[in-house]
Amino acid sequence: MPFRSLAIVGLGGIGASIGLSLKRRGLNLQVGGYDLLPQVSELAQAQGVVDFVYPSLAACADAELIVLATPPHALPQCLQEFALHLKPETVLTDVASVKSPVLAWAQAILPHPQRFVGGHPIAGTERSGLPAARADLFEGASWVLTPTAHTDPTAQQQVEWLVRSLGATPILMEAEQHDKEFALLSFLPHCLAFSLKSLQRQHPTLLQGGSSWRDATRVAESDPALWAELLLLNRQFTAEHLTALMAHLNRLLQLLEAGDAESLQAFLKPRERQ
Amino acid sequence: MPFRSLAIVGLGGIGASIGLSLKRRGLNLQVGGYDLLPQVSELAQAQGVVDFVYPSLAACADAELIVLATPPHALPQCLQEFALHLKPETVLTDVASVKSPVLAWAQAILPHPQRFVGGHPIAGTERSGLPAARADLFEGASWVLTPTAHTDPTAQQQVEWLVRSLGATPILMEAEQHDKEFALLSFLPHCLAFSLKSLQRQHPTLLQGGSSWRDATRVAESDPALWAELLLLNRQFTAEHLTALMAHLNRLLQLLEAGDAESLQAFLKPRERQ
Repeated sequence: MPFRSLAIVGLGGIGASIGLSLKRRGLNLQVGGYDLLPQVSELAQAQGVVDFVYPSLAACADAELIVLATPPHALPQCLQEFALHLKPETVLTDVASVKSPVLAWAQAILPHPQRFVGGHPIAGTERSGLPAARADLFEGASWVLTPTAHTDPTAQQQVEWLVRSLGATPILMEAEQHDKEFALLSFLPHCLAFSLKSLQRQHPTLLQGGSSWRDATRVAESDPALWAELLLLNRQFTAEHLTALMAHLNRLLQLLEAGDAESLQAFLKPRERQ
Repeated sequence: MPFRSLAIVGLGGIGASIGLSLKRRGLNLQVGGYDLLPQVSELAQAQGVVDFVYPSLAACADAELIVLATPPHALPQCLQEFALHLKPETVLTDVASVKSPVLAWAQAILPHPQRFVGGHPIAGTERSGLPAARADLFEGASWVLTPTAHTDPTAQQQVEWLVRSLGATPILMEAEQHDKEFALLSFLPHCLAFSLKSLQRQHPTLLQGGSSWRDATRVAESDPALWAELLLLNRQFTAEHLTALMAHLNRLLQLLEAGDAESLQAFLKPRERQ
């Protein structure tokens, strides 16, 4: 085991799932937690999510590995706090769904940014907070890591070890590439889910909708404050993909109006070339 | 039991699920089937989906209740065939995802359109054909029926009985209301699923996407020929909802560019008034 103590900062759905999963595996690892809300920290300890609660954010700097699992807007402040207290060998990672801004903050704020390895577990649901925690949340999931040319290889290995310990597979890619792909793969579906629900509020239906509706709108139950924040942090790529989608829908509308079934079918799903 | 013999015309996912479900319940009911493809009819009989296979489409007119479960484009021809052979007391229903056009065809073609009761089970998946059949497909589902002021009450009762026998709940509404609601609840999610997949073909990703992507694109596996047909049959309402969605996405894009988190959050999900 490359480290003996780990601090989870932010005990929401992702942070608490990391704790639960590590505890479930019975590793010889001291897992401490800290949440801005003391009652959340206490409940997490009572539920066995963490072994103990750190008395302050600064105290988390004692751990060998720190996992930042706060909402993105809290990250700069956390990094500033740690910048004053970190030991040079401490490794940091995060779990935010945007990677370029977090990397930029780490590089600007931390005295040893080469020991920060950005991360994003491709897991989680529309539910949030401690009650959403699941010990098997990362089982079989991909977990993007965004080391740079300057990243300390030992720090990277420790974070990869953590990811594998949680049952996930580390996928290394550049922060910008991650943000571009996720604008399409996650931000666009979230925008559409929120938008479909808004349309339904404007045009209330007697019927409930079947599985296509439920699946397309499930993530509209996500926290809108978190998503407003994420969308703004990844606004360039999100705007690019939204613009491309709107052009596509506009063409679909034209084909509907033209009324040619064959062109419409080819547009919906081009035949794959063998 | 209000009838003793039932013919299922079209043994795809929905037609075959009706057969399987009725057989599973062991009702004293002769269930015959017919499919344009003889090998599908034979396989359906071999798999116990139907008791027997009708030798021709016209022969299905012998049944007391006929369920039309073909793709929509085949319905006018089926109705024309039956118009020549139906007994006056025979009841007909269908399962198409558009209701106004089917009702118009029935009224134009059938000698006794008052014994046609349009229907649409809110069930089914992106899979199609006989292999997609499931005996429990309709369990707990809603099943829209669109009787008119002229519908024979006995015919309506028989179709309602069938729906309840399959474990579903009949929901009575006007055909046009159905089509308007379904343009939003099902046609829009299908358009978006096909469109997201098209965007991904244009911008291939290294990553696979998590559950929000999988859920938003699942129905893009649906048959594009069927969906081109359905979208054109319901083009007016689909175009209206698509246009409203595009206006909404355009506003979202403006808010992204303006960069105000609070307005964006309120737009994503307006606070519900208590």
